[in-house]
Amino acid sequence: MTRFVCRDCGLAFDVMVPRWRCDCGGLLDLEFSPRLDPAEVAGRPATLWRYREALPVPEGAELTLGEGFTPMLEVDLGGRNVLVKQEQLFPTGSYKDRGAAVMMAMAAHIGVTDVVEDSSGNAGCAVAAFAAKAGIRCRIFVPADNSPGKLGQIELYGAELNPVPGTREDTAAACMAAAEDRYYASHVYNPFFFHGTKTFAFEVVEQLGWRAPDTVVLPAGNGTLLLGAHIGFTELKAMGLIDRVPKLVAVQSARCAPLCAAFEAGAATVAQASSEPTLAEGIAIALPMRGEQMLRAVRDTGGVCLAVSEEAILAAFRDMGRKGFCIEPTSAAVAAGAAEYVRTAPRDEVVVTMFTGHGLKVGDKLHKLVSD
Amino acid sequence: MTRFVCRDCGLAFDVMVPRWRCDCGGLLDLEFSPRLDPAEVAGRPATLWRYREALPVPEGAELTLGEGFTPMLEVDLGGRNVLVKQEQLFPTGSYKDRGAAVMMAMAAHIGVTDVVEDSSGNAGCAVAAFAAKAGIRCRIFVPADNSPGKLGQIELYGAELNPVPGTREDTAAACMAAAEDRYYASHVYNPFFFHGTKTFAFEVVEQLGWRAPDTVVLPAGNGTLLLGAHIGFTELKAMGLIDRVPKLVAVQSARCAPLCAAFEAGAATVAQASSEPTLAEGIAIALPMRGEQMLRAVRDTGGVCLAVSEEAILAAFRDMGRKGFCIEPTSAAVAAGAAEYVRTAPRDEVVVTMFTGHGLKVGDKLHKLVSD
Ligand SMILES: Cc1ncc(COP(=O)(O)O)c(C=O)c1O
Ligand SMILES: Cc1ncc(COP(=O)(O)O)c(C=O)c1O
Ligand SMILES: [Zn+2]
Ligand SMILES: [Zn+2]
Repeated sequence: MTRFVCRDCGLAFDVMVPRWRCDCGGLLDLEFSPRLDPAEVAGRPATLWRYREALPVPEGAELTLGEGFTPMLEVDLGGRNVLVKQEQLFPTGSYKDRGAAVMMAMAAHIGVTDVVEDSSGNAGCAVAAFAAKAGIRCRIFVPADNSPGKLGQIELYGAELNPVPGTREDTAAACMAAAEDRYYASHVYNPFFFHGTKTFAFEVVEQLGWRAPDTVVLPAGNGTLLLGAHIGFTELKAMGLIDRVPKLVAVQSARCAPLCAAFEAGAATVAQASSEPTLAEGIAIALPMRGEQMLRAVRDTGGVCLAVSEEAILAAFRDMGRKGFCIEPTSAAVAAGAAEYVRTAPRDEVVVTMFTGHGLKVGDKLHKLVSD
Repeated sequence: MTRFVCRDCGLAFDVMVPRWRCDCGGLLDLEFSPRLDPAEVAGRPATLWRYREALPVPEGAELTLGEGFTPMLEVDLGGRNVLVKQEQLFPTGSYKDRGAAVMMAMAAHIGVTDVVEDSSGNAGCAVAAFAAKAGIRCRIFVPADNSPGKLGQIELYGAELNPVPGTREDTAAACMAAAEDRYYASHVYNPFFFHGTKTFAFEVVEQLGWRAPDTVVLPAGNGTLLLGAHIGFTELKAMGLIDRVPKLVAVQSARCAPLCAAFEAGAATVAQASSEPTLAEGIAIALPMRGEQMLRAVRDTGGVCLAVSEEAILAAFRDMGRKGFCIEPTSAAVAAGAAEYVRTAPRDEVVVTMFTGHGLKVGDKLHKLVSD
């Protein structure tokens, strides 16, 4: 039986009743028994729903825009062939579709008619798109100083934009207040989101012929992919489909690197980082809510945290472009991290990474980014 | 053996020697014997290269960015469920990757090091991306009045932009002149391009369980997809894999509809249309070079030509957005055509259409398109 369980006090809750945190304020995990049979999966359509018995959504409640089973290609990164999942090819242009598809399928299944979310970026887009597909009303809270141009994709999906004056924290607070009587479709709090992003791990392992890679290099903003991948690989190991969880290497921008700071300091928790504007906007989270959990995922798997410079991000962005890949600058940060990682990694390691977002997300900036 | 054959005089040419038209000036087709075994194809990776024995590129010469085998989803169009191939999910954001992948693979195979092309739109992007992947230098001729912002994706792929003052025809002429001593990677002239877009037909038929649909609704600009699909379905029928070629329905913008005019008039050739600015820029071709061939593909299959209004295009664009699909206005023209077609089509027809390009291609215009 699937249940919400509080990470702090252990209290359990029914998943048929909307909830985004414990009464004690703690973050929620999902308790759930996945099942995955490689032979059964083999002939199914190339979407993440091929793993349906390993997803906490009842059969028949699937919601799809054709997302998942992204190609995994060899790309020269840092002078070495690295396997790169093409997560920029998701319907809305980023891997956030993994989380949104599963979370919104569950929301629709329990009869939700209205959701709220606070993200003006890729997560907001993904939630808006799957809400549209499900016929669920969607309200996205965004800082009032966001330019309308940046929000066009969210509007296109029919979501209502709710501008909030003040800081990013004010936006989050306004959304949480609205979440009192609406479903909070949060990519940070809602554990169903992470049980969508975990399919990244399933796909990597299936595409490697049901073997685990040695290392996976991932972005570390709020950890939606890092933690999802950690859940996925851990479940695969528990089911006996792989023999170890790969090292998880977390990449941040040097301009905003709270996880790296905590990792270096040997701290158990993550403190708010001072942060400067960076090309890698998507991972510039000064205080990740699930920071402690992220830190543990990196440490438990024998991984490391890497901070990359603006110069390295821009160079990786341009290098990937000249190789035929149109990716977001945030994705380029991860590519830069992967290039740095393999420079000192053992030669025989199988290293996997991903392009997280499409360059067309910043289509109007490409000219400037290439030619400056 | 694969050969170029002139559509006008029947002269044949070796495909190992670059050539984009006959000495008589005629357009070239490809003479080629495809092979396709459904059982063999079944277990292969989800790219268009799964049909490699049916592609005029030698084994081992494949070139991939992970393109093809796009999802086919049921979408409510005009009050009816239509099957819609998600061609906007290609690496560069449009189905032109089908043609570019196959054409550039062949170019690389015969040792080409420099290509030229004249398209500032999706075809130019796709050619630039696969040239980058192949390590081939690429020069794209564009009208000098194009804004740099629009060309950022082409620049990102490392292609050289060659602005030409004057009309679109001047741009084409400059490119043809340059093609005297460089490979002309043309989406209009080069028949390898059409043998890439034909994989659209293969995928539709495989995804329907090796059955042909009754009708396919397609865009009609230069006919790269229409003619490709016609080749693909015709090959499948010749191989005995389907029993009939589906009706091909060609959609144009009412503001630029040379094919529709010729079709209505019962003419054998297509005359230059008067043309006004339209939301469906991608199909606004006043004089398609392969117009006669397009006309014949529509007539021979029992199809029709449809012209759609600006109002219908904008309405379809917004409707698709509210259903969770982010597509280009040009794609919306095809959706509008499909909606119009099914309104009077027999209820039991299996109708397939496609979203041709990603809405993020015009990301900076989405806000205005949704809210005006
Ligand atoms: C393109 C892109 N890459 C990476 C990330 C990393 O986020 P997270 O650590 O939450 O997975 C984001 C988050 O928005 C993103 O948009
Ligand atoms: C998005 C999009 N749709 C449709 C077309 C139709 O072109 P064609 O008739 O050459 O297949 C184009 C051509 O550039 C395009 O860019
Ligand atoms: Zn608690
Ligand atoms: Zn000839």
